[in-house]
Amino acid sequence: MTAPPPTATVGVLGGGQLGRMLALAGAPLGIRCIGVEPAADPPMAVAAEVLRAPYDDPAALAELARRCDVVTIEVEHVPVDALAWLAERLVVRPSPQVVAVTQDRWLEKQAFVRLGIATAPFARPDEQTSGFETGSIVKRRLGGFDGRGQVRLERAASPRALAAAVTELGGGCVVEGVVPFERELSLVAARAADGAVACYPLVENRHRDGILRETLAPAPGAGAAATLSASAVEMVTTFMADLDHVGVLALELFEVNGRLLANEVAPRVHNSGHWTIEGATTSQFEQHLRAVAGLPLGAAAPRGPAAMVNVIGTEPEPGAVLAVAGAHLHRYGKAPRPDRKLGHVTVVAADERERDARLDELRALVGVSAST
Amino acid sequence: MTAPPPTATVGVLGGGQLGRMLALAGAPLGIRCIGVEPAADPPMAVAAEVLRAPYDDPAALAELARRCDVVTIEVEHVPVDALAWLAERLVVRPSPQVVAVTQDRWLEKQAFVRLGIATAPFARPDEQTSGFETGSIVKRRLGGFDGRGQVRLERAASPRALAAAVTELGGGCVVEGVVPFERELSLVAARAADGAVACYPLVENRHRDGILRETLAPAPGAGAAATLSASAVEMVTTFMADLDHVGVLALELFEVNGRLLANEVAPRVHNSGHWTIEGATTSQFEQHLRAVAGLPLGAAAPRGPAAMVNVIGTEPEPGAVLAVAGAHLHRYGKAPRPDRKLGHVTVVAADERERDARLDELRALVGVSAST
Repeated sequence: MTAPPPTATVGVLGGGQLGRMLALAGAPLGIRCIGVEPAADPPMAVAAEVLRAPYDDPAALAELARRCDVVTIEVEHVPVDALAWLAERLVVRPSPQVVAVTQDRWLEKQAFVRLGIATAPFARPDEQTSGFETGSIVKRRLGGFDGRGQVRLERAASPRALAAAVTELGGGCVVEGVVPFERELSLVAARAADGAVACYPLVENRHRDGILRETLAPAPGAGAAATLSASAVEMVTTFMADLDHVGVLALELFEVNGRLLANEVAPRVHNSGHWTIEGATTSQFEQHLRAVAGLPLGAAAPRGPAAMVNVIGTEPEPGAVLAVAGAHLHRYGKAPRPDRKLGHVTVVAADERERDARLDELRALVGVSAST
Repeated sequence: MTAPPPTATVGVLGGGQLGRMLALAGAPLGIRCIGVEPAADPPMAVAAEVLRAPYDDPAALAELARRCDVVTIEVEHVPVDALAWLAERLVVRPSPQVVAVTQDRWLEKQAFVRLGIATAPFARPDEQTSGFETGSIVKRRLGGFDGRGQVRLERAASPRALAAAVTELGGGCVVEGVVPFERELSLVAARAADGAVACYPLVENRHRDGILRETLAPAPGAGAAATLSASAVEMVTTFMADLDHVGVLALELFEVNGRLLANEVAPRVHNSGHWTIEGATTSQFEQHLRAVAGLPLGAAAPRGPAAMVNVIGTEPEPGAVLAVAGAHLHRYGKAPRPDRKLGHVTVVAADERERDARLDELRALVGVSAST
């Protein structure tokens, strides 16, 4: 007696909570995941084999090439060379090209401009115009996340101030004009190899200290939402088609005066899509695996108004969270540390009022005050 | 850096697909499962450590006692002595007493009678009255499942025919009167240690050759359903309270002339509750873990009309199943074999008509013809 062949074996660069939720979503489909992660105690190991190695470790990459049908990522800051090496040997989704563009703020913004996707004003630090009247944010082109790798400057910053910021960040920067946005939104979508696209609803994201705290799905504000949603779908569809992206992809957006500006793209499952595990017909994790494994995409329809609250820094008592009606707890198995994402909680409700009431209960438990 | 403590460590006697789905449901809650299973390639191993040993292996039981907060079962035909040994050392849910009663058809029927729960006529094989006018089914008291361990006899069977059937089955039998039922139903419920109860909707089960093929949730027939459902809830609540059951429990029922007769009880997660993974707010697997780990029960409300189709004997092509709108595939990672449960597929629809249409598509794929 031997077990049947898996639907697919999917290599994953990264072994964090996104890899964990991919592996848990893959098991019912018969999709086996193999992660690569240099850090100890990878959250993904709960339901997958995880090779402990740097993302560009030759032996680990060779093992993925030998054992997997396809390789994907759960962190975008992986060496593009490693993906390129793999892409010569097996299918890699997203492609090295997509990762190269989206992990580099400069290239990403160039793609937005080329594709007619509205975005905030930006410039190279050495350009005359780069001190924007509304203020500037100097960001590292590569590697920043959760608000790290950034320096904010006052309006009309001098070339000297810009240069100092670039030096502080270690070079390789882009300057963005500060956008007086009303709120932050995102659209999580998936594209299959045959070009089929499935978009989850546009959601609202609430950050504090540069870290996502809450997602409301769909984004409140029914009036504007239809127009905004159509605009976001157009942007993400254009972007994915142009780069021939295969898999899930998240487009982060600013809403400014009823218009959307693209902020950045993550070519992977995304924190603002965690609500889909319970809140949509097909979770973003299953969707990503379906796409990269060449299976048909699933429906991305929401099941009702949902909210996701991140558990950051310290964990609430599980029993208290589960006592909230309809609450779904997701612990990542990570050691507590300030500003660290340790888990999330989702509620799906019958209507927005109920959703907001549940959200208030959860905020009190996970120590997150309302902030927009 | 070390991972945070688990919410609970739950020992599980058994390591099959039910253990697999328990382990997958436990991971997000931070509940770690440890299985005990003598068979090779346990499906549960995808997301849990599984000790390869007989259910009454002293070393394995000692390891569970040492490492777990609570022990449960995913097969009911485990040695009661093993559970009793564990129960002297840690919390065991369901209790050895519940398992002793529900794994023995005779004791189970005695409990039904004692509690005023209607059931089919039954007798000991040596009783004068045991050849029922409507025909008889001689069943082993212990160990039969999926239609095995049974012999069916024509109406008014002679004492000699009954004795021969008992001999064929190896002794230790009960005789049931054949009930001309209209359909088979079941109710999956959960009870917490504090006595709180949550019931999933009454569902209809369709068998062939003694094996469950399909579950429709809720059971069709809105008119009768409210009365039937209330009756089933009363039965299951009474049974669970009397035996102080903690965890999920499934009550299988016959509908006869608009009334319900209890058939049998499984004090565990149940095949007729698999639809709850996508079809209810809280899956039966999460619910069971919440109950046995002392966490609050979750809502058992359905998300919409659902159907579950078992994959038996051979597996369909995963891509074909996933192309059915709203289909959720659950493979168990088991080697194909005639009559073996290899997986299941669930659809949750907006209404019964859509559910039935999807069910037709799935039947064609998994080779199950409609049967009631």
